[in-house]
Amino acid sequence: MKLEPESMAEAITSGDRLILSRVLTLIENYDPIGIEVLSLLFQRTGRAHLVGITGAPGTGKSTIVNRIASYLRHVPQEGQLKPPEIAIIAVDPSSPFSGGALLGDRIRMRDLSGDPGIFIRSMASRGALGGLAHTTADVAAVLDAAGYDLIMIETVGAGQAEVEIASTAQTTIVIDAPGLGDDIQAIKAGLMEIADIMVVNKADRPGAKKTLKALRNALMLGHPSKPAKLNQASEDGQPEMWLPPVLSAVATRNEGIEEIVAAIQEHRRYLNHSGLNTVRERERRIAQVEYLLRERLAYEFHARHPAKHFDGVIEKVLAREFSPHQAVQSLMQDA
Amino acid sequence: MKLEPESMAEAITSGDRLILSRVLTLIENYDPIGIEVLSLLFQRTGRAHLVGITGAPGTGKSTIVNRIASYLRHVPQEGQLKPPEIAIIAVDPSSPFSGGALLGDRIRMRDLSGDPGIFIRSMASRGALGGLAHTTADVAAVLDAAGYDLIMIETVGAGQAEVEIASTAQTTIVIDAPGLGDDIQAIKAGLMEIADIMVVNKADRPGAKKTLKALRNALMLGHPSKPAKLNQASEDGQPEMWLPPVLSAVATRNEGIEEIVAAIQEHRRYLNHSGLNTVRERERRIAQVEYLLRERLAYEFHARHPAKHFDGVIEKVLAREFSPHQAVQSLMQDA
Repeated sequence: MKLEPESMAEAITSGDRLILSRVLTLIENYDPIGIEVLSLLFQRTGRAHLVGITGAPGTGKSTIVNRIASYLRHVPQEGQLKPPEIAIIAVDPSSPFSGGALLGDRIRMRDLSGDPGIFIRSMASRGALGGLAHTTADVAAVLDAAGYDLIMIETVGAGQAEVEIASTAQTTIVIDAPGLGDDIQAIKAGLMEIADIMVVNKADRPGAKKTLKALRNALMLGHPSKPAKLNQASEDGQPEMWLPPVLSAVATRNEGIEEIVAAIQEHRRYLNHSGLNTVRERERRIAQVEYLLRERLAYEFHARHPAKHFDGVIEKVLAREFSPHQAVQSLMQDA
Repeated sequence: MKLEPESMAEAITSGDRLILSRVLTLIENYDPIGIEVLSLLFQRTGRAHLVGITGAPGTGKSTIVNRIASYLRHVPQEGQLKPPEIAIIAVDPSSPFSGGALLGDRIRMRDLSGDPGIFIRSMASRGALGGLAHTTADVAAVLDAAGYDLIMIETVGAGQAEVEIASTAQTTIVIDAPGLGDDIQAIKAGLMEIADIMVVNKADRPGAKKTLKALRNALMLGHPSKPAKLNQASEDGQPEMWLPPVLSAVATRNEGIEEIVAAIQEHRRYLNHSGLNTVRERERRIAQVEYLLRERLAYEFHARHPAKHFDGVIEKVLAREFSPHQAVQSLMQDA
């Protein structure tokens, strides 16, 4: 069945999961129809809360994500008439070639399948890195327009790709665990700086207290003057600053999940009251438009210039007559 | 002391390490002077062999790199009058904010310092991801022109950033180790596909044989029809194909290092004889020029258009009048 973009957009807003999946595939494949559907849906975005979950390998990210989803679906929350609809995007930037088989996926399916209020999507890298973070943002926008209240974006690895992908979210949770190796500690340093919430999972393991204490100390070092009011509304309703809470959890035993959910909700309130949400959204939009602009400029440049000319310049680089920078100079001059 | 690009290029080719370090810093900071020095030096590049070393956290990459360097500096190689000069670039893409403090560095310094035939450079991400892989290639080109025979590019993490960085090298070594966690296995799948040489380090640990066997099986699956002549010259001097060897090592005890060095040299011969070196260099140059072209096009676009206009379009995206894709459409139309 061939559908027009308008019909697809309509089907998505009325809850058609089959069309939703199909449009997400179009977007992942950079199909212009997918982009058109997204543009039609764009006005309906902005309602969902986007939560990024990242952390070093071996910390149990998938389990945390699954438990948060289960908790929100089954434990009634204050002021909510019905449980939130949840979408999970599992991104694997480390598999540019294999197409990305996520090991956690089978477990996830077993835990969460059958609940019509949960939608799961796996994504792997197919092209450039910036591209994956960008496609993830587009996929999240469609899910937002489709009516999902909470969108969790989980990344498998722990490199800068993951940092970029997690930063498309409004709240970023970094998962840690005791007893990881030395070079995982190095990875963590970079991740800590993007954390809105830190979780030490597997807190029943030896060394958990030490890991918790080390993280709390490291975070306090970054915020030397502890303000009077922290993570709570001051008199004018605005919290003065956000110090990422360091929570402990044993996700496999469902311990600490309630506290993580509370911290997510607290952070969301902080984002809204402090105005930081607006500031961050502007930054994200600038980066997004800038990225798309570059893609478009390159596309138009190649459309205007014969491939032969580009190839000729490459030959000169191979012959070491031009450095790559001189090659670009030459391409631009002849433009 | 202020130097002209010409004097700096000259100083680098005559072995001035201070100027070399200074120029590498200029290049990392996207300083046009650094780019000019690189262009002046570009004709002298192409002599060094670039080896990328990557792998999941906890596999002992730094130790392997250090031991390879020590081995080549101290054990005379056939047909060589003097030991090769070696440069090591340690890249940490996971630290976009902290500036990247590599834990392995102190150990590395202790092991290798004092040898004037070894030059060590640490790099951390400061901007976009594609940028880091690109800057790494530029840094390697300067080291190549400076006369280093072997340039090892080691990455700390294991995401796609590392894959991109490692792929700037001619020979890619992927390090593995027994007893890593489940989601490290998922990371490995992506890395295996870029490996020219696989090494199972920490081979004295339990499970090493299993890891070796699993890797060999996985590699054979990817090459179902084993050719008659593998990794060795056929009658016309060209090996028919390259099946990545799976080696075992205990780097801390210096075991297996000789075999890794032999495999690197074997792979280099294969690249040259098969003509694959030329094919791959062309691919690398196209990607490099393409990346620089995009940077330049974006720069020129913004120079031609008032910032006010770009800001206005962002406002429309924030008001959800435009989707990001429609914003770019609008920017291009007014161009």
